[in-house]
Amino acid sequence: MAHIKVPEAVPGIRSLVMYRPETGKHLYQLAHVLLRDDSPLSSAERELIAAYVSHRNNCMFCMSSHAAAARCLYGDESAIVDDVLTDMQRSGISEKLKALLVVAGKVQISGKSVTAQDMEEVKRLGATDREIHDTVLIAAAFCMFNRYVDGLATLTPTDPEAYKEMGKRMVEKGYALPDANGK
Amino acid sequence: MAHIKVPEAVPGIRSLVMYRPETGKHLYQLAHVLLRDDSPLSSAERELIAAYVSHRNNCMFCMSSHAAAARCLYGDESAIVDDVLTDMQRSGISEKLKALLVVAGKVQISGKSVTAQDMEEVKRLGATDREIHDTVLIAAAFCMFNRYVDGLATLTPTDPEAYKEMGKRMVEKGYALPDANGK
Repeated sequence: MAHIKVPEAVPGIRSLVMYRPETGKHLYQLAHVLLRDDSPLSSAERELIAAYVSHRNNCMFCMSSHAAAARCLYGDESAIVDDVLTDMQRSGISEKLKALLVVAGKVQISGKSVTAQDMEEVKRLGATDREIHDTVLIAAAFCMFNRYVDGLATLTPTDPEAYKEMGKRMVEKGYALPDANGK
Repeated sequence: MAHIKVPEAVPGIRSLVMYRPETGKHLYQLAHVLLRDDSPLSSAERELIAAYVSHRNNCMFCMSSHAAAARCLYGDESAIVDDVLTDMQRSGISEKLKALLVVAGKVQISGKSVTAQDMEEVKRLGATDREIHDTVLIAAAFCMFNRYVDGLATLTPTDPEAYKEMGKRMVEKGYALPDANGK
């Protein structure tokens, strides 16, 4: 049971944005701009960064839902998502995306752990300022979302099918405030 | 120097929201709702939570600016801010606020480290669901802001007077996007 009285049977962050839509509105708008709007990184890559950071933060709800969205967006190449979550360096993603995920992993630990050497390496592999910016802000934002969801002990479904549906909705509808039924 | 090309001589998060106002807008709106709009916690208490978490994340820019805002809001009792940052448990704040800061400190580590016992204790001392919610989300949000500011190595002024001015502006104007000159 969640630590505070949120709508029952509504999982994860959706129960929190229903409890407090005044903050929820800005959280969802931020997620939408970060993961769906204009960026040199594809939505698939950005959902993968979100899932990777959530995995490192041990946040089952965010990891499972954003991994599901990433699988949906990668389509025929959806196996890449689980490869990255299992062993990122041995996965089939580009060397540039690996270096960006290294930066995201540093941000997950702390902002200060990102070094000038990390930046040299990621730029050498072709990453632009905007790609670096978006990676750092997505990683930082999921350090917030993960803590919000787990710090208040929100409902975390265990059925993989529930996340598959969530991922599909996140891809089709983007990040929009839930209706009164949590849908 | 910052890791990416942001406006020069503009400190901290202000340089980042100028670099990317599309995300900056939502970040500032979130900060404004969290720290200034309606809450059972005073703005002084909320700025104190922000400074406390930023201190624990070793983020000099956010710690110094939000501590300055908190001092401004506490007025004649401004010494309480430095007392909390030095030794929270021995400071003169209420037992309820201490317990909320314990929760904020747990959120700074990870969402999952907040326990049912922490919740029992904070509720026993009179904290409401909204106070707990706002504390957890402020703490989580500063785990994002701190990582965004330090992960991109933004300019961190060292002159205490610079923060004093920032704190005053944050209290008088709230969180509004900077103009073209970073003001």
